[in-house]
Amino acid sequence: MTRNVRTHAVVVLGCGLMGAAVARTLARTGTSVAAWNRTHSKAVALADDGVTAIADIHEAVRAAPLIIAVTADYEALWSNIAGATGWQGATLVNLATGTPDEADRMHARITAMGARYLDGMAACYPEGIGSPEAFLSYAGSPEAWAEYSGVLRRLGGQTHHVAADPRVSMLMSVWYSAFYVPALAAYVEAVGFAADQGISREDIDTLTPLLIDLVGHAAPEISAAVTTGEHATDQATIDTFYDGSVPVLNVMHDAGHHARMYSAALASMSAARELGLGDQGYSALATCGISRPVD
Amino acid sequence: MTRNVRTHAVVVLGCGLMGAAVARTLARTGTSVAAWNRTHSKAVALADDGVTAIADIHEAVRAAPLIIAVTADYEALWSNIAGATGWQGATLVNLATGTPDEADRMHARITAMGARYLDGMAACYPEGIGSPEAFLSYAGSPEAWAEYSGVLRRLGGQTHHVAADPRVSMLMSVWYSAFYVPALAAYVEAVGFAADQGISREDIDTLTPLLIDLVGHAAPEISAAVTTGEHATDQATIDTFYDGSVPVLNVMHDAGHHARMYSAALASMSAARELGLGDQGYSALATCGISRPVD
Repeated sequence: MTRNVRTHAVVVLGCGLMGAAVARTLARTGTSVAAWNRTHSKAVALADDGVTAIADIHEAVRAAPLIIAVTADYEALWSNIAGATGWQGATLVNLATGTPDEADRMHARITAMGARYLDGMAACYPEGIGSPEAFLSYAGSPEAWAEYSGVLRRLGGQTHHVAADPRVSMLMSVWYSAFYVPALAAYVEAVGFAADQGISREDIDTLTPLLIDLVGHAAPEISAAVTTGEHATDQATIDTFYDGSVPVLNVMHDAGHHARMYSAALASMSAARELGLGDQGYSALATCGISRPVD
Repeated sequence: MTRNVRTHAVVVLGCGLMGAAVARTLARTGTSVAAWNRTHSKAVALADDGVTAIADIHEAVRAAPLIIAVTADYEALWSNIAGATGWQGATLVNLATGTPDEADRMHARITAMGARYLDGMAACYPEGIGSPEAFLSYAGSPEAWAEYSGVLRRLGGQTHHVAADPRVSMLMSVWYSAFYVPALAAYVEAVGFAADQGISREDIDTLTPLLIDLVGHAAPEISAAVTTGEHATDQATIDTFYDGSVPVLNVMHDAGHHARMYSAALASMSAARELGLGDQGYSALATCGISRPVD
């Protein structure tokens, strides 16, 4: 039987781009770090960074009181650790991306084995891990957070424990993705049109930061309106956006572009107008995006 | 008959939020500014800022060699100025929002009357006019640009003459809108979901700037890929985005949200995958957004 060795302060499970960044960053700050990966060579590759590779998963989960899992998803994590024993007194921090339900289920499984659980999400690229800008949120055991927040804060300057409810971090991950994925698709679509029309890469790159700033400029007003339900505005209404957008879509269509993202925005505006929300602020699009009755 | 008075250096046609900001900003820098508005009181309201109100449009277009029009749209501008005479030697700068075709037509009409034409677009809010960050682009007569770039630069620190072709500024306005409008709709949708799930406004506002930075971080790689047509990546592929996005959409749907923007992004990814582009970078979405054959 594998002994409960606890030879290290932290063990990282999964040494992909993000896992490797986590292990390296902690080792750099003087923490004693072990790492495990299904393909062992990826763990071994971290030796120069002062990380000890462990080949056996049973040994790995016993190697430290703090286990940080950075696998592809929750299923991959569970398939790796389900058979491992010796969890008593350990804390599992899970940085895989999944759903709120998966976070709930993992929380139940881990606590059933006698360990504490923190469900984390990193809103940054692997190269951002350890930087002052890196945003990481954790949900779950307040006791685990109290004990390990010092270590976890080394992974990013903006590190927060958002709730005791283990679902909340993945909920944040969903809304993060709900903005990022379509916003990026809109950028690809817009740049695709611009390049096709002969706008230079230089002009595109000059305008881009200003466009992105405009979104940032509008955001606080939108979050205020959506969280309070007050969508009245003396600035641009949904009707204003709609009237300005129809000719733009025509230009894109005439040039042979599908403009899927732009069409979807216009469809959302149309739905809002049909509900009589045309004279409200753009934020009111949120109230016509819910198919079930809202309290 | 109205005399060709040229009593001022600049005359601004249209005193809405943007036109008023333009007139005020120029007057503040010591330029002699006149202003006209269909509802005369709006022009008169600028008197305290040192702007001379002119009630008659015929008189207004003759009041200065540089005419800056900031009307709601091209049609409104033309309906106001079509009957005016005495354009010889004047320059019309049009800051209304329209389409490349409208810019082309206005250019033809203005030059037929003996004046020079610059088609402008301001990628900023009215309160940003005159600030170092304000981005304005002008397309059209290089001679007019050479003569008036000094005055026009006072409207924004980032002022560019992008092309002699009068269509180009409105083309930039289209791609600007093609990103901004759906990106903002995605933000509304994402925040609508977050608020509905009980995420606090504070947590939303904390995460937002980081999300927006992530888009900015990804943008240069996307513009490089789209303008060069090289979509290979060692980072996230369309398949990676797709696999991560399907569960997110399910969570949003299960919570009763339409998620129109997110669905559109996923539809775009599906189209790209069907074209065999799943192993390319996200930027390759651009190549499946064009319905006509690409050279």
